[in-house]
Amino acid sequence: MGSRAGIGGKKVALQQEGATRLRRSFIQELARIVGAGNCLTEAAARESYAYDSTPGYRAFPDAVVLPGSAEEVARVVRLCAQEGVPVTPRGAGTNLSGGTVPVSGGVVIAFTRMQTIHSIDAANQVAVVDPGVVTARLHQEVEARGLFYPPDPSSQSVSTLGGNVAENAGGLRGLKYGVTRDYVLGLEVVLADGTLIDTGSSTLKNVTGYNLTQLLCGSEGTLALFTRLTLRLIPKPATRRSFLVFFADLEPAAAMVPALVEAGVLPATLEIMDRVTLQAVEQYAKLGLPEGVEALVLIEVDGAAAQVEAEAAGVTEVLRKSGAKEWQVAKDEATRDRVWAARRAALAALSRRRPTTVLEDVTVPRRQIPAMFAEIKSIARRHQLEIGTFGHAGDGNLHPTILCDLRDEAEYHRVEAAVEELFAASLSLGGVLSGEHGIGLAKNRFLHRQLGQAQVRLMRQIKEVFDPRQLLNPGKALGVIP
Amino acid sequence: MGSRAGIGGKKVALQQEGATRLRRSFIQELARIVGAGNCLTEAAARESYAYDSTPGYRAFPDAVVLPGSAEEVARVVRLCAQEGVPVTPRGAGTNLSGGTVPVSGGVVIAFTRMQTIHSIDAANQVAVVDPGVVTARLHQEVEARGLFYPPDPSSQSVSTLGGNVAENAGGLRGLKYGVTRDYVLGLEVVLADGTLIDTGSSTLKNVTGYNLTQLLCGSEGTLALFTRLTLRLIPKPATRRSFLVFFADLEPAAAMVPALVEAGVLPATLEIMDRVTLQAVEQYAKLGLPEGVEALVLIEVDGAAAQVEAEAAGVTEVLRKSGAKEWQVAKDEATRDRVWAARRAALAALSRRRPTTVLEDVTVPRRQIPAMFAEIKSIARRHQLEIGTFGHAGDGNLHPTILCDLRDEAEYHRVEAAVEELFAASLSLGGVLSGEHGIGLAKNRFLHRQLGQAQVRLMRQIKEVFDPRQLLNPGKALGVIP
Repeated sequence: MGSRAGIGGKKVALQQEGATRLRRSFIQELARIVGAGNCLTEAAARESYAYDSTPGYRAFPDAVVLPGSAEEVARVVRLCAQEGVPVTPRGAGTNLSGGTVPVSGGVVIAFTRMQTIHSIDAANQVAVVDPGVVTARLHQEVEARGLFYPPDPSSQSVSTLGGNVAENAGGLRGLKYGVTRDYVLGLEVVLADGTLIDTGSSTLKNVTGYNLTQLLCGSEGTLALFTRLTLRLIPKPATRRSFLVFFADLEPAAAMVPALVEAGVLPATLEIMDRVTLQAVEQYAKLGLPEGVEALVLIEVDGAAAQVEAEAAGVTEVLRKSGAKEWQVAKDEATRDRVWAARRAALAALSRRRPTTVLEDVTVPRRQIPAMFAEIKSIARRHQLEIGTFGHAGDGNLHPTILCDLRDEAEYHRVEAAVEELFAASLSLGGVLSGEHGIGLAKNRFLHRQLGQAQVRLMRQIKEVFDPRQLLNPGKALGVIP
Repeated sequence: MGSRAGIGGKKVALQQEGATRLRRSFIQELARIVGAGNCLTEAAARESYAYDSTPGYRAFPDAVVLPGSAEEVARVVRLCAQEGVPVTPRGAGTNLSGGTVPVSGGVVIAFTRMQTIHSIDAANQVAVVDPGVVTARLHQEVEARGLFYPPDPSSQSVSTLGGNVAENAGGLRGLKYGVTRDYVLGLEVVLADGTLIDTGSSTLKNVTGYNLTQLLCGSEGTLALFTRLTLRLIPKPATRRSFLVFFADLEPAAAMVPALVEAGVLPATLEIMDRVTLQAVEQYAKLGLPEGVEALVLIEVDGAAAQVEAEAAGVTEVLRKSGAKEWQVAKDEATRDRVWAARRAALAALSRRRPTTVLEDVTVPRRQIPAMFAEIKSIARRHQLEIGTFGHAGDGNLHPTILCDLRDEAEYHRVEAAVEELFAASLSLGGVLSGEHGIGLAKNRFLHRQLGQAQVRLMRQIKEVFDPRQLLNPGKALGVIP
């Protein structure tokens, strides 16, 4: 076993890259359940499931299975429970907190093959889907029927809906439409002993029993595995209008965010990018930025045509007083899509600048956005680090991204110190450690700072109820014993 | 001890109406914590807290305390934990499932004195309030600032926000705006041992730790007591338009509901009242109904003026094809308010007809509303009962209300049978036992029919984590051992 340190985590044990540790008869039984071609134990195959999109974490599973049905998932989990083998559920592996890295080895259950959209019901405004359905595919399918599934994490073209629910994924449309959990009505789940249960319902109103559905949203695979999702849909907004707003300084850009909301405008999207991010994005997407731009704010209002008209007037009024250098209204959908694609590519663009990008996810009350930007600037200066910040400003959800090289040990220590200070700053401003990326491994040792020991204890007792043998995604999301 | 049967419950033990069973030193300690005037032990005072708005349940507490702060609540709970005394939290006692009846006696903690609105922050769109704040008061306060708190249970002029969160209260605006839990961002709670913790945050995006906030919403006082609520607000809709739609038959009225939603219109409110309800309401409110009306549908669209215009056009288009006898647009706010008040008074109006009203709360997928109405009609006929049905049709949330007299034993047995069949019908149509009133005592013995034994077991284990000595609102919401 080797070991490697991830940012903010303890040393992470690396499962030996060679042979699986599982007994041959166990592997045969797995193969019987899911079919031989869907049970992978070769080192090369297992390596593909050893990491996710979080830098610094890697651990080989002993086997990877790709079940084709809820029943197969239940049988695999039951088998693992009998043998005491850890289980790590996995969608597309786009998560950014190390949540899908199988740190204790064992079996990865990848939901890639379970991608049926079972129903899209316009009268009930409900979709029933498999956990492996790609987020963007559901977007397309429901929008073709005049419906809308708002959650839109930046990884939507790859991420799966099951993964979105496990992480309670956010996205660009959170300000007006909320996050994934706001659209989860019910779940079919496999418990740690292999029992299948249905939580929630397909009705918007349901107060029968404890709200297990919402407890499971964002539980990062530590409480149960999802085998079917009942999701709420809404009517598709008829139209939208996008503003690109350029600022010569970061401060007025940050201050405009609470001002806009205070003025009663609720955009679908309200994004911010600082100069470091903009320069990276510009190289990638050639937006043709004006000279001397320190910050870009993207605003999109949506709804019925007349409503968009009224809201756009509200935006313009706030912009006039905002100190913005200039602004443009996206003249057509193609322009709008180009700008939005550039925004979604912010992380990819930044990650081309240095070998490692450490992406944080602090979230503060909207009113504190200017203060949080000031903190980020001061932390970057203090630790001589380049930090590009972008994010969902409307939600107070910022992604300060440290551009670095984890192989440089001195720099690595400065990064660690900076991350710790970012968390402290967010908490001191009334914010949270993670707005939409989860705790996973990456923020695990900071958990008690936000929640306090009593709450972490309570969480661990709940974990104990669902998973007394600690086999479901072990080592994640529940803090480390201090 | 006497005993009395509530509908759908086991025989409910009545605490002796005479003296409190609590030791004198214990009562003195309670009085020291909350002040002598806020610790009630006289039989007359205790009687006021022996029942709630649910017919058929009554049990005296041994003492009632009215704490003035979170710290006092924590100290009372700690004292009760030390002595093994049950604790029943109570807002305004408007709940309709027996949830606030102290069936094991002990101490009722009434939140009546904790009614401070701590802050209403327009830039963050967040209100921080005490649990005892009356729902309608928050409505007024935020609307005066151009903000909106959508959950509007019919008891809003009396009910408290803490009670709303404990029951996950719904209301008329659920279809477009969701229910109470959709507006709860964070809670300060007192655990069973008297520990105070803060769950959630004041940010819309937060994935730090398990979603305890949402687990607690709708937990009916069985997991923790709420001492402060952080609630999400949205901009106040600028305007609204209301339709009164009259039908000569119930069937087309019921069928119009899914048709409207399928057409892409998302009204804020979409209510239905059948003939029995209408006649009761008419006597009470003199709406001036046209002749031969079998059903009334109320529709309200809201938003920016232009949006309302567009949505109203959509409504009219659906109405034209709906088979409606005629419809009116409320010509001004006074007319609209009069109709809405009449709708809110439906239960009160029905309850004047017979000594007892047994109000159910079944909720089915919207598409099944016509089928559920047919079931209700057939159940009423089979058991020779008069059932008035009204409800939030847009959510599939119907309130079949059985008009009866619980003193008539033969009728009482027919009512019991009818209630059981209503639940069975709802479940067989893919619906739930309770949409917004909770399980409490009234639906406790039916719980496993919807959830299954495995899920009820899981709930009880979670209860055990939060409240190992079963002191918080004992006897409620967790099913009965079969």
